[in-house]
Amino acid sequence: MLDYAGLEALAAVVREGSFERAARRLHVTSSAVSQRVKQLEERVGQVLILRGSPCTGTDAGKRLCLHAEQVALLENELRRSNPDLLSDTPIPTLKLAVNADSLSTWFMDAMAEFTSGSNELLDLRIDDQDHTAQRLKEGEVIGAVTATGTTITGCNTWPLGTMRYIAAASPHFVEQYFADGVTPATLALAPIMTYDRNDRLQDRWMNQYHLVAPRSAPPRHFIPSNYGYVRACEVGMGWGMHPTVLIEQQLALGSLVELLPRKPLDVPMYWAHPRSAQASLERLTRCVMAAAKRWLEAV
Amino acid sequence: MLDYAGLEALAAVVREGSFERAARRLHVTSSAVSQRVKQLEERVGQVLILRGSPCTGTDAGKRLCLHAEQVALLENELRRSNPDLLSDTPIPTLKLAVNADSLSTWFMDAMAEFTSGSNELLDLRIDDQDHTAQRLKEGEVIGAVTATGTTITGCNTWPLGTMRYIAAASPHFVEQYFADGVTPATLALAPIMTYDRNDRLQDRWMNQYHLVAPRSAPPRHFIPSNYGYVRACEVGMGWGMHPTVLIEQQLALGSLVELLPRKPLDVPMYWAHPRSAQASLERLTRCVMAAAKRWLEAV
Repeated sequence: MLDYAGLEALAAVVREGSFERAARRLHVTSSAVSQRVKQLEERVGQVLILRGSPCTGTDAGKRLCLHAEQVALLENELRRSNPDLLSDTPIPTLKLAVNADSLSTWFMDAMAEFTSGSNELLDLRIDDQDHTAQRLKEGEVIGAVTATGTTITGCNTWPLGTMRYIAAASPHFVEQYFADGVTPATLALAPIMTYDRNDRLQDRWMNQYHLVAPRSAPPRHFIPSNYGYVRACEVGMGWGMHPTVLIEQQLALGSLVELLPRKPLDVPMYWAHPRSAQASLERLTRCVMAAAKRWLEAV
Repeated sequence: MLDYAGLEALAAVVREGSFERAARRLHVTSSAVSQRVKQLEERVGQVLILRGSPCTGTDAGKRLCLHAEQVALLENELRRSNPDLLSDTPIPTLKLAVNADSLSTWFMDAMAEFTSGSNELLDLRIDDQDHTAQRLKEGEVIGAVTATGTTITGCNTWPLGTMRYIAAASPHFVEQYFADGVTPATLALAPIMTYDRNDRLQDRWMNQYHLVAPRSAPPRHFIPSNYGYVRACEVGMGWGMHPTVLIEQQLALGSLVELLPRKPLDVPMYWAHPRSAQASLERLTRCVMAAAKRWLEAV
């Protein structure tokens, strides 16, 4: 079997970013951590950590960390059923990648249900739904909500349903920029609210409904915060694509209005995890599927 | 004077992350962009771009990009007062670093006022208030909301007031973990809601009120989303530090309750920008000061 003391040291260094912090976390000296990692590297015959600030895992190192997490999850299940078999091992932390809109809506239900039934901890990475699969591929996370329906090597993928987006802005903004209608010409001048450089939803919507003027480069604000994104549209800084479930209240109150009725953008969502994690993630997957079923549109 | 065609190309490459995207943005060929950057590098005698994916600026390159942004802002002011003097130059984008809690509360007011009075675009980086100053020092942003009151080299710093944080959790969570009171012993076992690895607010609060048990390592969830952070506390995943202004509604409804009354954590906030940007940021600074005055506690 693998050298699990070395693996624990490796995982702590990658998680904490330095040998010193890993040592504090494991209650040993930092030279002990260094030695354990070195021995593990010699045994597997590969460099596992890129020494720097912060220290990061090499591809092989990240793969081993993922393995360590899966083992910790299985140990935790074992402890739940047979408390006497295991002494006080640390509580496992699950690294997940989720898109911001899912986190603000249905994914919170899944987390609440999952954590209320156990002691596992969650460590979330927030990224665009088109980029979460990449983090899974690189072994940075053990599970991901993604828009990538195609097979991810070594992963199981489960369809969750569709998140429906609509284009919306404040009534004042609509008056100011779209008095002559929502057309390629007016859209070329109206500031677009953008989440980050990976956020292409606004462009996809304009493309889908043939609303892009040739050679136009509409002005863009960038606000990488979900709450900030909605609020910035409410105060009239720009128009943006919003999940309908997220802005129901704003639509009812009239602080946001739809740019074009009956022109939604439907984004199918998937849950994906490494095939090897199937057993350890079974309960989380059940929670994710149940919450998605309540919130998302069936495909 | 500097070679501004080269500077525009440099700024576009750093902003877009590649020569190809910069070329599309500037409506020229990518070899033209490459040539302009190369000429600029030869003139200043330094490498300005680290070719990679994405391309990033060297220290000197970032410093020149910051200069280009400041000139663009001044040009925009000039155009506002004398529209005829300038042909159709691109609208400037201000890169700002803001902590998530400021963005969710008072900073939105500042942005709304600033953008309603002009066409400038905003590009926000969200980071911990202890780390935004670093982004300013590195020339990544032109202005920052920061908790760093000490002088930042080459920058002007303005005190904004104090953001008051309180420790809060759901009533069910308090019942579950703090039935025996909020003590070092009970806090050692209760899951802490953490924004990201830079978030030390929970630890600062426990330290300030001597609530840390020796050698304890409380379990931690990580949810780097403001809205998600508050919601995760509401659904009972953990306890966390919240700005009082952000959770007024939750406290009134009772979905969140304070762990210990009259034990707040006060975090002084500052606005900082490069001294050289004083003229170009005058109006933004006014909007920031005015909004902070309405929301934050006076020091």
